[in-house]
Amino acid sequence: MARVVALDVLDIRFPTSLELDGSDAMNPDPDYSAAYVTLRTDEGPDGYGLAFTIGRGNDVQAAAIRALAPHVVGRPVPEDAAALAALSAELIGDSQLRWLGPEKGVVHMAIGAVVNAAWDLASRRAGLPLWRFLAGMTPEEIVGLVDFRYLSDALTPDEALSILRKAEPTRAGRIAQLTEQGFPAYTTSPGWLGYSDEKLTRLAKQAIAEGFNMIKLKVGGDLDDDVRRMKLAREVVGAGVRVAVDANQRWDTDVAIRWMRELAPYSPYWIEEPTSPDDVLAHRAIADALAPIKIATGEHVQNRVVFKQLLQAGAIDVVQIDACRVGGVNENIAILLLAAKFGVPVCPHAGGVGLCELVRHLSFFDYAAVSASLDGRVIEWVDHLHEHFTDPASVVGGRYLAPAQPGFSARLHEETLSRYVYPDGPVWTEVVA
Amino acid sequence: MARVVALDVLDIRFPTSLELDGSDAMNPDPDYSAAYVTLRTDEGPDGYGLAFTIGRGNDVQAAAIRALAPHVVGRPVPEDAAALAALSAELIGDSQLRWLGPEKGVVHMAIGAVVNAAWDLASRRAGLPLWRFLAGMTPEEIVGLVDFRYLSDALTPDEALSILRKAEPTRAGRIAQLTEQGFPAYTTSPGWLGYSDEKLTRLAKQAIAEGFNMIKLKVGGDLDDDVRRMKLAREVVGAGVRVAVDANQRWDTDVAIRWMRELAPYSPYWIEEPTSPDDVLAHRAIADALAPIKIATGEHVQNRVVFKQLLQAGAIDVVQIDACRVGGVNENIAILLLAAKFGVPVCPHAGGVGLCELVRHLSFFDYAAVSASLDGRVIEWVDHLHEHFTDPASVVGGRYLAPAQPGFSARLHEETLSRYVYPDGPVWTEVVA
Repeated sequence: MARVVALDVLDIRFPTSLELDGSDAMNPDPDYSAAYVTLRTDEGPDGYGLAFTIGRGNDVQAAAIRALAPHVVGRPVPEDAAALAALSAELIGDSQLRWLGPEKGVVHMAIGAVVNAAWDLASRRAGLPLWRFLAGMTPEEIVGLVDFRYLSDALTPDEALSILRKAEPTRAGRIAQLTEQGFPAYTTSPGWLGYSDEKLTRLAKQAIAEGFNMIKLKVGGDLDDDVRRMKLAREVVGAGVRVAVDANQRWDTDVAIRWMRELAPYSPYWIEEPTSPDDVLAHRAIADALAPIKIATGEHVQNRVVFKQLLQAGAIDVVQIDACRVGGVNENIAILLLAAKFGVPVCPHAGGVGLCELVRHLSFFDYAAVSASLDGRVIEWVDHLHEHFTDPASVVGGRYLAPAQPGFSARLHEETLSRYVYPDGPVWTEVVA
Repeated sequence: MARVVALDVLDIRFPTSLELDGSDAMNPDPDYSAAYVTLRTDEGPDGYGLAFTIGRGNDVQAAAIRALAPHVVGRPVPEDAAALAALSAELIGDSQLRWLGPEKGVVHMAIGAVVNAAWDLASRRAGLPLWRFLAGMTPEEIVGLVDFRYLSDALTPDEALSILRKAEPTRAGRIAQLTEQGFPAYTTSPGWLGYSDEKLTRLAKQAIAEGFNMIKLKVGGDLDDDVRRMKLAREVVGAGVRVAVDANQRWDTDVAIRWMRELAPYSPYWIEEPTSPDDVLAHRAIADALAPIKIATGEHVQNRVVFKQLLQAGAIDVVQIDACRVGGVNENIAILLLAAKFGVPVCPHAGGVGLCELVRHLSFFDYAAVSASLDGRVIEWVDHLHEHFTDPASVVGGRYLAPAQPGFSARLHEETLSRYVYPDGPVWTEVVA
């Protein structure tokens, strides 16, 4: 029986603030980073996972992951649904660590990184990409992965089972379709707040030429600038392409409503993160005021309990899961099931470091085994840092290609690890300094 | 001009799990701990603060506090409201660290520890206990301490100013009253889940004899046990003493309602933490079902945004602030103002390490300058670990005495620091091992 023999963590940072990639109204100068975890086994392969941060504090995130080692090191490699459910439950259930959340922030993201590394490991051992590994499980096994605590007023295990059983007979056809045609993507690359109008125009045109039919702009810095940029984007892409906007939590409720009414003449498709990700009631008020503009959030939604309320309250029209914010694959499956129960499409947050690589697996699984629908579903695409991954995400003709390599795609190249490790890697000691 | 020259952090842990003090339905074996921060200055005094945890992960909490050092070290000692507002704003506003929350969990508690240490320092330099230092500020200065982001749909700066101005002319009388008579307390000491019926009975009788007219029991482990313990407690204390119960987040909505209906014949005063602290809608549903039993929560409510929603939704009848969970004094003032706006009493969570010591200052300030009411207000009292503090909280005749020493009372004795430092202090190397 193979065992986990070590949990190694590295603080990896990319100096993205030098280029203003990733700049938005709340995050002017991110250095995209990963607290990178390797679960080493006594008989290969190893498993890889990460927590995504934007620079300072990545060391704190790494410390939190290290604090989980006693739960993992010495453990038999979790290979099946039951073992992966047990690992997640044990990590979530550590009552002393739970105090630091509960189920939110640094410790919860650490759990997510370790749980995802375990899934990477299990699917590597199974010889399957994660989405195929998951889509090979029975409805009962999938339901068994989920922690239903605090969910039962919105979703019971029986309801979850019904959702999965309904989609099961037609799974194989959708898996074949996904393998052949991929999954729709949209691109945020033209829309960073630090970009000039010229760069926005050029990148928006390029996006259309590459086959995207949806782009996204960052907003929330200056209203006049946003109106000009939204108008420009609409002129460049035409009426048939969706233009979403993203305020990155910048506004209070009344400001969100007033600001978006100025952009409304240019038909924004959704407003993303209009306000605090904690504020269910504010999202509901904004949704009521701005319909038919859709309300989207999720990249900072801390756990399934907040997603549940956003759905119960009718506060969001788009569920933006993030592969690395919540407690990993298990909790994201809970969120996929909640979204399916409420009939709201899941359109993942991506970008950052490895978020495209990981989260595509969850959308592919969602379509194959849960929602069974592509209607309104689209995965974010940001074209940077993919070259550092051994199984990089790839978008062709505006669609994510189906991941085909075994695992969850979180592995970074060894050269990247040695060059970008903080603060001693040569990129930091030589290039940035 | 005095400056902060160092930020020192120690991982201090007390092996409380050996005695089952602090045991509850979610936290069976806590080792009460503090990530303890000292702001050293170039011309004394120094400032002290802490984040409370229950054991594992206290090192992660300490790492998060250390990550804030660049914002503090080298800074002029913040001595007045404007400087203390600026420090809080700078810490909350670090966009890279914000990603790890935002405003929740480990990083937010770290901010709370540092902000509280700065308040301790400022009030020491002013020669006043914190509550008197705060109660000496103008309404305008107090409003200037608060970050109103995400609050404006429930509380504007003008409304906050009105609340404070209304109480201002009568502040002096309440300060005199508090100094003379203290503030009402209730005790949790009889009710830990690990205690026998005999110990519960003995401690409950002792509480009444000491002058308390409210006690609290932990519930949520086993329904039959809880009914027996609640019945027993009611018999021991009689009809005239309030008995609150605390489920420490153990239940889903329907279980909370069913369980509490079994306890209802014994007239529980409030049910505390019936479910996830993140679940505004569940608290509202539980409140609707269980009235007139009051709903209380807050020790794990992550920030002002969630408190705001709990109040907006009419989901809670008691606001349980915690001195060390949110972003420190500044954010707790925001919460006191929200509670005053909605007319809901603030009854702080205490216990742990130093929570009684710190939070009493906030209730004293609340009565002096914000709510101007004692109606339904009571501060939790747990009688352990006070001997480790240089300015320990003290309850006499069921009332907290007014803190009189300068500062925020977070300072631990030097001997405690050397004995309980983890993992190298003699308590851990010799006694526990």
